[in-house]
Amino acid sequence: MISYNEAIIQTNRTIQNMLKNTPQDIKEMTGQLADAMGKGIRARLLLACAMDNDNLVSEDAIKLAAAIEIFHLATLVHDDVIDDSPLRRGIPTTQSLFGRKQAVICGDYLLCLSISKLTEIYKGSEQEDVYLLTKFIDSITKICIGEHKQSVNLGNMDLDMQEYVRIITGKTAMLFYIAAYAGAITSDKKHINENKKKINALANCGRSIGIMFQIADDLKDYEETEATALKPVKRDIADGVVTLPLILAMADNPVIKELTASVLNNKTDVMALVHEVCSAGGTKGAKRIHDRYKKRAEKFLDIADVSNEKRNILLGLINIS
Amino acid sequence: MISYNEAIIQTNRTIQNMLKNTPQDIKEMTGQLADAMGKGIRARLLLACAMDNDNLVSEDAIKLAAAIEIFHLATLVHDDVIDDSPLRRGIPTTQSLFGRKQAVICGDYLLCLSISKLTEIYKGSEQEDVYLLTKFIDSITKICIGEHKQSVNLGNMDLDMQEYVRIITGKTAMLFYIAAYAGAITSDKKHINENKKKINALANCGRSIGIMFQIADDLKDYEETEATALKPVKRDIADGVVTLPLILAMADNPVIKELTASVLNNKTDVMALVHEVCSAGGTKGAKRIHDRYKKRAEKFLDIADVSNEKRNILLGLINIS
Repeated sequence: MISYNEAIIQTNRTIQNMLKNTPQDIKEMTGQLADAMGKGIRARLLLACAMDNDNLVSEDAIKLAAAIEIFHLATLVHDDVIDDSPLRRGIPTTQSLFGRKQAVICGDYLLCLSISKLTEIYKGSEQEDVYLLTKFIDSITKICIGEHKQSVNLGNMDLDMQEYVRIITGKTAMLFYIAAYAGAITSDKKHINENKKKINALANCGRSIGIMFQIADDLKDYEETEATALKPVKRDIADGVVTLPLILAMADNPVIKELTASVLNNKTDVMALVHEVCSAGGTKGAKRIHDRYKKRAEKFLDIADVSNEKRNILLGLINIS
Repeated sequence: MISYNEAIIQTNRTIQNMLKNTPQDIKEMTGQLADAMGKGIRARLLLACAMDNDNLVSEDAIKLAAAIEIFHLATLVHDDVIDDSPLRRGIPTTQSLFGRKQAVICGDYLLCLSISKLTEIYKGSEQEDVYLLTKFIDSITKICIGEHKQSVNLGNMDLDMQEYVRIITGKTAMLFYIAAYAGAITSDKKHINENKKKINALANCGRSIGIMFQIADDLKDYEETEATALKPVKRDIADGVVTLPLILAMADNPVIKELTASVLNNKTDVMALVHEVCSAGGTKGAKRIHDRYKKRAEKFLDIADVSNEKRNILLGLINIS
């Protein structure tokens, strides 16, 4: 059992090992990905939720955290194939470096690698682990469906906020939910039934953080430059991806809806529309919704009733999302 | 516990249910795939190996067989993305019907669905199941690497038979191996240690069948028409895929090697080269290697020392591969 900070270091080391000690044939791709890992917010969420009464984290939690980050990486590699993206976190994507075919294979490999890591916690094999694996895999299938939903809603101007939240819950917040859930389960395996309410509260807190995270990411596309966002920006509208700022601006203002229709059809004047959405309050409105989920995350954290140290770490994650 | 024939029927029913009872968003794609399932040779191999001393098959074996077919389907959907294939088994591919993006997502979904099915056998959760899952997932990662290997060897005229066998072992025979292995394990869970030699013999028999199967499939590309093969033929050379008939023809005959170089560079005269490969004995040689693996499969079947009924079913599978 180790501290949260040590657990982050060990998780990162595990991830680096997983990506750098791959078979020769695939090493170039996974090694390149190893050098481009993000902040690991999903792993941090899992490890924070995994803190026990003494604020210590188990070996199993580290494996789960590494698995969840590798799984996330797999979805990113496939996302970049789906979106034809040249850059991710400021670095060329697998598909732009190695081609679409290799990127499909690399994503499949990483998906399997993450599940392989997951099965390692079975060595002792208790019933709750089985339940956890089943739930984990189920959530992964839901993430695929979330991806699909976004994909079929490209260019859908009638997308409303409710459906938008449903889509981002599937494609993003589900993984935050399962990270928090898996962490909470491993924090006290002996008292899962007694702690059900608290475990669910942490999982729901995780989901709210995931929704905040995606809304913030969608806001970046409207408000930031490529230099600060470390990825292409002002692309969502051009790609037909209808996100919260646009949904809110269209709802308030039929002129913006007309402008959107013409932009979506002709792919012109994207920058002018982005400007209109911002000045019509679309981004401001999206920040309000973001804050609503922040309050929700904090409320669930209260219900979970965790130690001060655990609470502070989770509040920190809420604040950066 | 049911008979082998009933187990095939139940496995097919399970697969149909898995593909047709998917969430609304993805139903159109998976439903279309359900109507285009193949003969299910991997499931048959697994079920045959799963026959116990009374020639009966367990519930777990059916779940495993369904999982392995769904996993195979996932790889096919992604293969078609990788190869840009319009047809599979005479029916338009997912990517040609729904687009590349949807096909990537659909393959990911099916991959998860198969692993989800696999975890169902954990309900009773015994240690050997855990080992089986780990081995299964490991073999899946190896399949991804096999795919990758084939992909990086496109247009590699120096590919020799040894490396060719290594590639098809990874991308095809590994799944046959794990199918036979998983079946053998479930046939007598109480005596795994005592039966280790027989279990390995069945698994190796499965691998040999897989190699035969892939050589036969590669031969189809040279010898059959689109009508009999139910897929585009004479495509391997045009796509730069160097398979056994070409490898053997080039080894015997430097003129064919020169011709191949010019065809690979200019993508012309593919039909003439196919004709040359056949008349130079490349296809005949490939059939000889195919027979060599047939003998090997039969030898492993002898070592496995199974009941007459089980033996006859496995011989039947060897004969159609």
